[in-house]
Amino acid sequence: MRTGIWLIGARGSVAVTAMVGATALRARLVEPTGCVTELPQLRSAALPGWGELVFGGHDIVTTPVLKKADALAAAGVVPGRLVAALADELTAIDSDLRPLPAAPTQAGTAERIATDLREFRVRHELEQIVVINVSTTEPLPEPHPAHASLAALTEALSGPEPVLPPSALAAYAAFTAGCAFIDFTPSTGARLPALAELAESAGVPYAGNDGKTGETLVKSVLAPMFALRNLRVRSWSGINLLGGGDGANLADPAANAAKVASKQRVLGDALGYEPEGTSRIDYVAEIGDFKTAWDLVTFEGFLGTGMRMEFTWHGCDSALAAPLVLDLARLTAAAHRAGRAGPLSELGFFFKDPLGTGPSALAEQWATLAAFTAGLTR
Amino acid sequence: MRTGIWLIGARGSVAVTAMVGATALRARLVEPTGCVTELPQLRSAALPGWGELVFGGHDIVTTPVLKKADALAAAGVVPGRLVAALADELTAIDSDLRPLPAAPTQAGTAERIATDLREFRVRHELEQIVVINVSTTEPLPEPHPAHASLAALTEALSGPEPVLPPSALAAYAAFTAGCAFIDFTPSTGARLPALAELAESAGVPYAGNDGKTGETLVKSVLAPMFALRNLRVRSWSGINLLGGGDGANLADPAANAAKVASKQRVLGDALGYEPEGTSRIDYVAEIGDFKTAWDLVTFEGFLGTGMRMEFTWHGCDSALAAPLVLDLARLTAAAHRAGRAGPLSELGFFFKDPLGTGPSALAEQWATLAAFTAGLTR
Amino acid sequence: MRTGIWLIGARGSVAVTAMVGATALRARLVEPTGCVTELPQLRSAALPGWGELVFGGHDIVTTPVLKKADALAAAGVVPGRLVAALADELTAIDSDLRPLPAAPTQAGTAERIATDLREFRVRHELEQIVVINVSTTEPLPEPHPAHASLAALTEALSGPEPVLPPSALAAYAAFTAGCAFIDFTPSTGARLPALAELAESAGVPYAGNDGKTGETLVKSVLAPMFALRNLRVRSWSGINLLGGGDGANLADPAANAAKVASKQRVLGDALGYEPEGTSRIDYVAEIGDFKTAWDLVTFEGFLGTGMRMEFTWHGCDSALAAPLVLDLARLTAAAHRAGRAGPLSELGFFFKDPLGTGPSALAEQWATLAAFTAGLTR
Amino acid sequence: MRTGIWLIGARGSVAVTAMVGATALRARLVEPTGCVTELPQLRSAALPGWGELVFGGHDIVTTPVLKKADALAAAGVVPGRLVAALADELTAIDSDLRPLPAAPTQAGTAERIATDLREFRVRHELEQIVVINVSTTEPLPEPHPAHASLAALTEALSGPEPVLPPSALAAYAAFTAGCAFIDFTPSTGARLPALAELAESAGVPYAGNDGKTGETLVKSVLAPMFALRNLRVRSWSGINLLGGGDGANLADPAANAAKVASKQRVLGDALGYEPEGTSRIDYVAEIGDFKTAWDLVTFEGFLGTGMRMEFTWHGCDSALAAPLVLDLARLTAAAHRAGRAGPLSELGFFFKDPLGTGPSALAEQWATLAAFTAGLTR
Repeated sequence: MRTGIWLIGARGSVAVTAMVGATALRARLVEPTGCVTELPQLRSAALPGWGELVFGGHDIVTTPVLKKADALAAAGVVPGRLVAALADELTAIDSDLRPLPAAPTQAGTAERIATDLREFRVRHELEQIVVINVSTTEPLPEPHPAHASLAALTEALSGPEPVLPPSALAAYAAFTAGCAFIDFTPSTGARLPALAELAESAGVPYAGNDGKTGETLVKSVLAPMFALRNLRVRSWSGINLLGGGDGANLADPAANAAKVASKQRVLGDALGYEPEGTSRIDYVAEIGDFKTAWDLVTFEGFLGTGMRMEFTWHGCDSALAAPLVLDLARLTAAAHRAGRAGPLSELGFFFKDPLGTGPSALAEQWATLAAFTAGLTR
Repeated sequence: MRTGIWLIGARGSVAVTAMVGATALRARLVEPTGCVTELPQLRSAALPGWGELVFGGHDIVTTPVLKKADALAAAGVVPGRLVAALADELTAIDSDLRPLPAAPTQAGTAERIATDLREFRVRHELEQIVVINVSTTEPLPEPHPAHASLAALTEALSGPEPVLPPSALAAYAAFTAGCAFIDFTPSTGARLPALAELAESAGVPYAGNDGKTGETLVKSVLAPMFALRNLRVRSWSGINLLGGGDGANLADPAANAAKVASKQRVLGDALGYEPEGTSRIDYVAEIGDFKTAWDLVTFEGFLGTGMRMEFTWHGCDSALAAPLVLDLARLTAAAHRAGRAGPLSELGFFFKDPLGTGPSALAEQWATLAAFTAGLTR
Repeated sequence: MRTGIWLIGARGSVAVTAMVGATALRARLVEPTGCVTELPQLRSAALPGWGELVFGGHDIVTTPVLKKADALAAAGVVPGRLVAALADELTAIDSDLRPLPAAPTQAGTAERIATDLREFRVRHELEQIVVINVSTTEPLPEPHPAHASLAALTEALSGPEPVLPPSALAAYAAFTAGCAFIDFTPSTGARLPALAELAESAGVPYAGNDGKTGETLVKSVLAPMFALRNLRVRSWSGINLLGGGDGANLADPAANAAKVASKQRVLGDALGYEPEGTSRIDYVAEIGDFKTAWDLVTFEGFLGTGMRMEFTWHGCDSALAAPLVLDLARLTAAAHRAGRAGPLSELGFFFKDPLGTGPSALAEQWATLAAFTAGLTR
Repeated sequence: MRTGIWLIGARGSVAVTAMVGATALRARLVEPTGCVTELPQLRSAALPGWGELVFGGHDIVTTPVLKKADALAAAGVVPGRLVAALADELTAIDSDLRPLPAAPTQAGTAERIATDLREFRVRHELEQIVVINVSTTEPLPEPHPAHASLAALTEALSGPEPVLPPSALAAYAAFTAGCAFIDFTPSTGARLPALAELAESAGVPYAGNDGKTGETLVKSVLAPMFALRNLRVRSWSGINLLGGGDGANLADPAANAAKVASKQRVLGDALGYEPEGTSRIDYVAEIGDFKTAWDLVTFEGFLGTGMRMEFTWHGCDSALAAPLVLDLARLTAAAHRAGRAGPLSELGFFFKDPLGTGPSALAEQWATLAAFTAGLTR
């Protein structure tokens, strides 16, 4: 089951870390640490093997994959010895990466994206392609009437004005080319009625949004802990300090707003009420890929006694995200092959702001994921 | 269903906080924050109501309940206004508290404990009594051949040498008086083959050990988080700084060893391997009841990238323990009434080191507990 | 040496905590913890004694002092037993508090403020009065040409448009009434050329700005530590979570900007360069007076090795500020008596953003303060 | 002024990091970050230049310097590019390293150490040699009557029983060879009356003990902060988690005791009283050279209000220690040349447990050091 992974933002940190990792796993140079599809409960013959994954993608920058991999090695994100050992394989990926197309209308751009995907399929005799958005977070888009139905959208895309943000246009193009789509960012992606309609009619699955890699992952186990113990959370405030490309982009208040909202959502879901407090994001270039998040939780116990908990998370975002990108590609390709179309709400385990109405507590999300995976057959 | 709660250590912080709380709940002066049996998923008509609980107990100290409650109010553990409002009810409890008996043989002591329990039952027309050990932690006891069978134990107890540590003698006496037993401490309690035999023959249930109130509670959700994400925990080290009676006692290395062992156990269970590191306990009188625990977790992600997490927990141990003591009393009384005898492994949610072979991840323990509670009928 | 302390914001948390404390010190009910003028190196017969301090002040709210003191006791800021013991003395202070005057012109308002001060002096036969601003932080004011000289200011104050922010008007009124002035907030206070001119001509001293009570205090010792060890600070980022009146006000971005700027200033001064990062302030009502600040410092050591330090500060702002308000009143009154006029740059120890060009490292500020105090004679 | 640095433990992490750094500084490949003798206030023509330092030393292991440097690069302690660029220079140092001698008597061993030092001086035409102990911490030694006077010691050293721990024997040998001695560890070093006598008669200076690199450095600025603000520290507790050779050794309770004692000393000195609490050291192999220390300080403010501060220090011990070793060598060589003999109490800035009776607050230690350095002339 040869499977294509087409990355939007293919020369960025997450994408290249995923490429280094998948290539190293195929060469059996590393353990699959961080890949949940390699846990005994999720291992499945229905999933494509490491040797069956082929990378392609779009990006607006042109840095060669190997050069980016070297930069990641220098920053401590991936081991230098792996990059050196896999230099040829990483260089070979460049031949499947394309500049992000642009045409006079969004319909035209979408068609050119779809053409890139179809050529990728033919070139590598791929059974499935999963398009995954790992580019930087977009500002919250303006609502547009054309988002409401596929018919309206199709017409609007042919006009001179852009109606879709780039992430949604990528989802549109993926669906028209018969490819699954995953949004690993808080951007719009496939979350528009018109796109849901298209995915259904094209018979392709999709998932998202916003990979749960750090602070929110911790929240998704701590918030249920307070709930299960009937302890009342009074406030939950946090700050994320991060550099790297994503950090710079999130310094933009518009993008920041999207991200911050998705970071606090888990609290309301898990607790049944919204505690006071916000989660901030600050760009600190010096910190680079190794994000630091700090959260303070104040809570009330028996007879109103006030207590506190703090945590600090020093995580490498790209190293946390990349294995999940590979997991999502394997699971979504297998779901597509098994005939699933539309939103994969069973993948909520991976996301800060999952599609559908699944549970928000990590343990329940895990049980849902395990049942989903067990139901997939090759 | 009038239910007696007989506390070993009845004049200590946990016991008196439980008394203040139960009395306040009966008077509808407070919300049942921290009581898990008041969560919608666990609420059950099979459990005794707040108005049906009657307190009694043993202690070696003689501080009046009200005086201890005032001290707890001064320390910020319980609200002073509650203590003032409930002064009469709290004072009334003194008449059901007894000095811990002592006789020339342990058989004699046990008989006098059992007599106190039987008189308590008659005095208040109690349907069930649950004996709960909330006294300070004992050193790890010497093994003794008489622990292996009820016959051997019965004989040995009549001799002049003590063969059981106090917590186990309390369990023995409880069982002989037809009472359920819970050990909320890491002491031996009912965890001896001879006592298991006795509980079975007496038809009474028991549970334990060591209430999960702070650092270990957090571990029981964070360790599964790392496991579910296939992140490898390299080291997990922690320190607990606490004052109060329990802190002073745990400064004794022998008691400390028992507690520390039970604190790290959850890691091996949840992760499937033992990470490096230990959990220390230090006595700092100044800190009083408001314990501070700090943990550092170092872990490995994709391609071996090293990352870190820290947390600090500022919790009031008595305020965290007391509602669980009430929950356990309600659940165990209902189980007893429903005909359960022997170890209640379904109560692992409450303990650091639960009896039996149940799950160690908090979410799974919760599911087990919910199913158990749903199965109880009045 | 009877000395008046006239507080702007006299019914707020800092002011009333200072009143409770001074009254308790006079009655010898407490130790002078937190009062630096009681350290052996600063104790001086030139300073007014606790029994010589008399409180008065302005406020726009009308809560009685005792009622506010009770609220502070309930919040754990001051001990309830002290408030109970000192109820009469605290109630008596109300008779010296006045509503903040307002007249058609700012000249008129200033005159009424000055009248209140003169009457306070006569009523209590005060040798000195120190006016101290402890009201909530103002937004950064618009520049105005009349700020540049006393002549221009005098003229402009008679017009219908306000030209001075309230803190500066208070300083103006204080100076015209021959009183010293201290701004304990980041507001404008006396920091205008026209007011410097007035203080000089009136022969009165002044000091400020912005009491250094928590995170910035810590910065003022940690930043010099890095500098003295030639370790290069790459980034210094922080967040302050606080409730209470001040927190609510600082949620206003304009006021926040003033405060945040004064919080980072110490870094540039102590290090000789501006590290990356900002210091945020978030309002969390639940947290009340017990502020939590968290800072992350990333720094570079030998051969460029990257390292990190974090700290968390759980402080009670009013309890940290109040003794410094008393210290400042004592020192400034003594300086006034000793003939000092104009800015007291030797008091930089107390402030985040001190007047003049003194040192920013705490140890050097201390040495300067000790020399200053030693030079005061009664 | 060619100056020899003779390191006891010359193939360990601190020593080799110092060698890499000094060689890189000589080659102008790096900035002197972390070297305090390069700060404007301490720069002095009296100090030997980077090009005038020559390394030699003893060790019981035989790992080549370059191999150890490569291991340090792999661990992130020094940059790999520097090690590669300086490979020849680092390899050349091996020719000046010797196995630690051992003879039938300690007198014999000392004589062989001294011979190594004299040969080192002749071989490189050195004007001064500074012997610096950077080997692992010794257990606290047994007291011995021969420690009390040089005469008794000289006699005892000729006997078959060892009377001096290795660090003290190294100091003895250094003094007899006319070399200065510095103990950068908490071991005994020169702190015996007999050795003080010998240093005086030989006219050589010495300094120590125990380089102040992390948690204690922070304590030496925070403790004075609390003191200067008249805030009462109630408890100060900490834990140090570290791997590496030093960590493994400190897991030995005897060595640990020496280190822990020196870590708390600064508190009593700076505060004037001993707060409750201890500072623990735990060995966590996984953590390697990047130590994590966590401290909790509870303190009391105005009117007894309780507050808290925590800090976490993530430092690389070798990278913090190495530049101080170079600083100490430069300063001590210059002091020796300037005719100083006996203990250099002015170097307290560098040590956890300084010789003599100097100040313990960092800022005061700095002032003392600056005056000392200014007094040195070439």
